[in-house]
Amino acid sequence: MGDHVRAVWESVQKVRTGQPLVHNITNYVVMNTTANALLALGAAPAMVHAAEEVEEFVAIASSLVINIGTLSSPWITAMRLCATRANELEKPWVLDPVGVGATPLRTRVSDQLAQIGPTVIRANASEVLALAAVSSRHTRGVDSTDPSQAAIEPARQLAQTYKCVVVVSGAVDYVTDGDKLLAVRNGHPMMTRVTGLGCTASALVGAFLAVEPDPLVAAAHAMAVIGVAGEIAGARSAGPGSLQMNLLDALYQLDETALARVRIA
Amino acid sequence: MGDHVRAVWESVQKVRTGQPLVHNITNYVVMNTTANALLALGAAPAMVHAAEEVEEFVAIASSLVINIGTLSSPWITAMRLCATRANELEKPWVLDPVGVGATPLRTRVSDQLAQIGPTVIRANASEVLALAAVSSRHTRGVDSTDPSQAAIEPARQLAQTYKCVVVVSGAVDYVTDGDKLLAVRNGHPMMTRVTGLGCTASALVGAFLAVEPDPLVAAAHAMAVIGVAGEIAGARSAGPGSLQMNLLDALYQLDETALARVRIA
Amino acid sequence: MGDHVRAVWESVQKVRTGQPLVHNITNYVVMNTTANALLALGAAPAMVHAAEEVEEFVAIASSLVINIGTLSSPWITAMRLCATRANELEKPWVLDPVGVGATPLRTRVSDQLAQIGPTVIRANASEVLALAAVSSRHTRGVDSTDPSQAAIEPARQLAQTYKCVVVVSGAVDYVTDGDKLLAVRNGHPMMTRVTGLGCTASALVGAFLAVEPDPLVAAAHAMAVIGVAGEIAGARSAGPGSLQMNLLDALYQLDETALARVRIA
Repeated sequence: MGDHVRAVWESVQKVRTGQPLVHNITNYVVMNTTANALLALGAAPAMVHAAEEVEEFVAIASSLVINIGTLSSPWITAMRLCATRANELEKPWVLDPVGVGATPLRTRVSDQLAQIGPTVIRANASEVLALAAVSSRHTRGVDSTDPSQAAIEPARQLAQTYKCVVVVSGAVDYVTDGDKLLAVRNGHPMMTRVTGLGCTASALVGAFLAVEPDPLVAAAHAMAVIGVAGEIAGARSAGPGSLQMNLLDALYQLDETALARVRIA
Repeated sequence: MGDHVRAVWESVQKVRTGQPLVHNITNYVVMNTTANALLALGAAPAMVHAAEEVEEFVAIASSLVINIGTLSSPWITAMRLCATRANELEKPWVLDPVGVGATPLRTRVSDQLAQIGPTVIRANASEVLALAAVSSRHTRGVDSTDPSQAAIEPARQLAQTYKCVVVVSGAVDYVTDGDKLLAVRNGHPMMTRVTGLGCTASALVGAFLAVEPDPLVAAAHAMAVIGVAGEIAGARSAGPGSLQMNLLDALYQLDETALARVRIA
Repeated sequence: MGDHVRAVWESVQKVRTGQPLVHNITNYVVMNTTANALLALGAAPAMVHAAEEVEEFVAIASSLVINIGTLSSPWITAMRLCATRANELEKPWVLDPVGVGATPLRTRVSDQLAQIGPTVIRANASEVLALAAVSSRHTRGVDSTDPSQAAIEPARQLAQTYKCVVVVSGAVDYVTDGDKLLAVRNGHPMMTRVTGLGCTASALVGAFLAVEPDPLVAAAHAMAVIGVAGEIAGARSAGPGSLQMNLLDALYQLDETALARVRIA
């Protein structure tokens, strides 16, 4: 565990030193909170979505995060253009297929984006099951109703199919490259009562991808960092309103002592 | 009053147990805060607005909230499709006609949506007057400049015309089905200094409509709940920044003791 | 300095008494936080962007703020229509050219809007340099990497070219009408870790333009007010999450005593 603590701390320091520009094409609900989480950690967020400029913008960014939470046609066009360009430029990118399985549109768009080839897919168990074409009877919007463990094998398949890393987030987060599997046991139950913390996790994966060459490591470190910040914030918070605020403060204050809570195995 | 306290508490418990999926087509300003209010209360929010998927999405939701705060053509199309489908599926839905009367576009869209047949219309006094085609000299954007009492008769008319429940929110909230009239005397003056608490009230009406068969009851309970949470938060807050946070915590912590503050008559 | 304190306090009181309606066409990331800042100060915000209604809406507003943070074609159309109408109606308006220089689209749109003739342009040093056609090697998204001092001469040029006031925000804010130059030395370093405080500054410039006839004065007072509120909030905050909240409370509580911190020269 000590090795993981040191490794996560080194990743955090690299983000703070490098201040990587993370290009987000994300949903309206979480734009403010994910930008703030990236800033609190030490990265530099930008939210840019027009088809006319996304390809040029991603060229000056260090990584890209595509989140399909609030879809519409012009955004889908921009997402596809930008993801394709990111691959051409060898910029790492994260796909967050919010609500895949809930409507045919979401399933189609998620599949198309996955086929372009993300570096990391981060999703909850229902979404991983839907994307892995495993029938998930419970997908309804953005909540996960499947325990994350049930999605481990579908996640491995998905990682092998798309040659990417897959993160299944839940009470325990599982991170796999189709071969290796890491479990991250950080977080706080009240985090499920704050909107968009899954989206925030995806944004942090984007930040760590900009500084860590191994996407399995980047993804695991990001999940540990948001989990630890959530634990610290949860312990100080009377409810989800204060948790949202305290989480940003915890990301800002994060140091090696706080990271002693990291549980990656 | 004791009966109302118990009834509101039962409604809250039904939301927490049932975790109804509330489909929101709402404005950009409040998406994050209304999603958080629904989560804090115990409901499950989703923000989905593409014309390509709203009809399918509302089919898996328990209720729908349409808020015209930040209008544009593609959203208007989606709102009309989704409201029509909600009626076909007998899903209850709320119309929040933000700024009706301020521009011809808002007046036209609000009228069209009202004619589709919402279950509840929640608006401030200026908006109710405008929608009831009573000339309101003061409508300017989203603030109410008319005392809510002056809108009681127009609200009754509106409720009769559209066979729906109308909520006029203000220092006192009035709720009418065109016949019965309830007054809800909860809330805190500082709530007018936080953006989107009217929109949040509409979202909570959506949550209660999912668990209470009588829309008059659902609407009154929602207004009481946000009012009580606002009172608790206001008493703890140095300004509107902390009020916004404490309101979410208060919704999360709401119990029968806190609800002793309910003033419905 | 005492004169400035009294003058800023008078401006704040005018905003609180007049409650000017500030029309914002701004980016998705900051809509909620800028609306809340305007409300906390005492102004009345509205976020309205549809081409079908912006010209009618600006007619009932006291001032306009155009911020290009999250551009797309329909919004560009609305921005141009609305800015043109504002000039016809002699309503003051602010241009916040977020990320100008980062992509050709942003540079083109910023130039077009500047040519329409804003009352005030508020930008960081990189953006002022880009807009003044001074090559800025470091523009990357919305962060400023140039010290604001280096942009003073380009800002003067820009102010002369467009016959407007230019604010270069940074650790020290510079405000010029092309002739006179004011320096505002308020603010807190942690403000750079909260998303959209530059956008919030632009929104406050909009509020002060509604009550102060001299745009140089309005812009300097707005920068002093957000700086002072940031100082008060920063001193109370463990991180950027609490700073964002405390800033709203500080704007709400702002009085002549707090404004003794004003440093305009």
